[in-house]
Amino acid sequence: MSKRWYCCDIRVRYAETDQMGVVYHTNYLNWFEWGRTEMIRELGMSYRELESKGVLLPVTRAEIDFAKPARYDDRVRIYTAIEELSRLRIRFLYEVRRQDTSSPFMGNEPEGELLVTGRTEHVWVNREFRPVRLDREVPEAYRLLESIAEA
Amino acid sequence: MSKRWYCCDIRVRYAETDQMGVVYHTNYLNWFEWGRTEMIRELGMSYRELESKGVLLPVTRAEIDFAKPARYDDRVRIYTAIEELSRLRIRFLYEVRRQDTSSPFMGNEPEGELLVTGRTEHVWVNREFRPVRLDREVPEAYRLLESIAEA
Amino acid sequence: MSKRWYCCDIRVRYAETDQMGVVYHTNYLNWFEWGRTEMIRELGMSYRELESKGVLLPVTRAEIDFAKPARYDDRVRIYTAIEELSRLRIRFLYEVRRQDTSSPFMGNEPEGELLVTGRTEHVWVNREFRPVRLDREVPEAYRLLESIAEA
Amino acid sequence: MSKRWYCCDIRVRYAETDQMGVVYHTNYLNWFEWGRTEMIRELGMSYRELESKGVLLPVTRAEIDFAKPARYDDRVRIYTAIEELSRLRIRFLYEVRRQDTSSPFMGNEPEGELLVTGRTEHVWVNREFRPVRLDREVPEAYRLLESIAEA
Repeated sequence: MSKRWYCCDIRVRYAETDQMGVVYHTNYLNWFEWGRTEMIRELGMSYRELESKGVLLPVTRAEIDFAKPARYDDRVRIYTAIEELSRLRIRFLYEVRRQDTSSPFMGNEPEGELLVTGRTEHVWVNREFRPVRLDREVPEAYRLLESIAEA
Repeated sequence: MSKRWYCCDIRVRYAETDQMGVVYHTNYLNWFEWGRTEMIRELGMSYRELESKGVLLPVTRAEIDFAKPARYDDRVRIYTAIEELSRLRIRFLYEVRRQDTSSPFMGNEPEGELLVTGRTEHVWVNREFRPVRLDREVPEAYRLLESIAEA
Repeated sequence: MSKRWYCCDIRVRYAETDQMGVVYHTNYLNWFEWGRTEMIRELGMSYRELESKGVLLPVTRAEIDFAKPARYDDRVRIYTAIEELSRLRIRFLYEVRRQDTSSPFMGNEPEGELLVTGRTEHVWVNREFRPVRLDREVPEAYRLLESIAEA
Repeated sequence: MSKRWYCCDIRVRYAETDQMGVVYHTNYLNWFEWGRTEMIRELGMSYRELESKGVLLPVTRAEIDFAKPARYDDRVRIYTAIEELSRLRIRFLYEVRRQDTSSPFMGNEPEGELLVTGRTEHVWVNREFRPVRLDREVPEAYRLLESIAEA
């Protein structure tokens, strides 16, 4: 069974470059956040809604591999998939690829020139930063995520 | 009567540069915030404390004039003064100057190569973003600020 | 004669919020850059191209008025217009507005809840940061900008 | 043989917080950069100098483990050590700890409340992003780094 990839497109901003003339490396971690936010939105929820129900999703671990740099004004596509899901935790996978067209993503596998890969691990917590079980706090969110994690 | 300048020193970080090879312009606005925070700290309060008492200080207007760019690893000194203070509002003045030494600021007038000047206007609000009178909410803070605004 | 407004849409990212629960104020200045970049692109040029021809456009002055805060996940529309253009300088005007729909901008006047207004002034320079005349360096860019500045 | 830790202190800025009320996670990666820059400076070189000699040090991989969040205005100490060094690559280790005093770091082991740990891997490249051997390009830099990597 293959992963189910979701994607969103961004255009590299001037503010994201550094004096090496490429994207400053920490921005990819920002983009990962964008990737998982848009993935959740595409599922029909929004992360804002989740927060308004008292469930936060802080990052507990991140890994990033930098293969090639993105440059100012490049179009890049952020691919996001769920690598692992439990009632307490979630792990996302990411691929950032340069994409010269804005054609919609139809296939099953990420396309375009691979720039960066990464993963982030998260734990569901309440506003006091105590771990919570997502299936109890927001069961409909848990079911939605489960449905694609299994895809 | 001359203004009373406070100052704090920073070193330009790589993340703050852009592909022109200079500091990306929005960072100066970040530095202004650093300037007023450190000014307040030097007065014996802290902005964190103020917030914990329910008084926030959002920016309502900012102006920035860019004369020369700061560059990576430069030492810059942020000079901050109060230009105007009332029970409802406060306006800060800033000068960002390149400073090759770390000698303490002793004089009355900002020194070093002038890079950027600016001002920010603020209004005191509560957690619901409604205007409040600082002299009623945190009188000791108001007195402290008043004492240097008049200097 | 009315101004000719161009616009682009963004969604507020988590990274752009601060602990007041609203967009940290310096991000609007980033968004202004996004606004003028997209305006130039809509004219059929790209700022990247301009830079590759040796013409840079640093900011010499910025003004921002903050009326209401944008919040996480809000859809905001950045309206950009040219306020003044000469062979040596350009001044842009901006309005940031909350926009609940993604309907295209058809009218002549910016619509939606006004959050922030601002302007930025720029000077055309070469790679050594010396002023240049745009009509000599990249005449086709000058003509394009002139055509809308007069609109 | 134990690692040789270097450290530098920062104070959390407002701009670094997000609406969870804590430091937005990508900032730690920025702080790591600050940590290795200051480490190199303490050795008597500067990263700026290295770049001016044509040697850049892009990040090829980063890992971050988030244990506890830093908060606005916290004093945090960034500990940096070299985990591995070769002629072609370098790997740094980091610990970010909350530190209530500004007492100098005298011991051998990082102290204070552990917030975040991480590592970054880098490769030495020239301005065209091609790998270079540091011992050939800037031998004195290589010797300095070697001396503490072995410590």
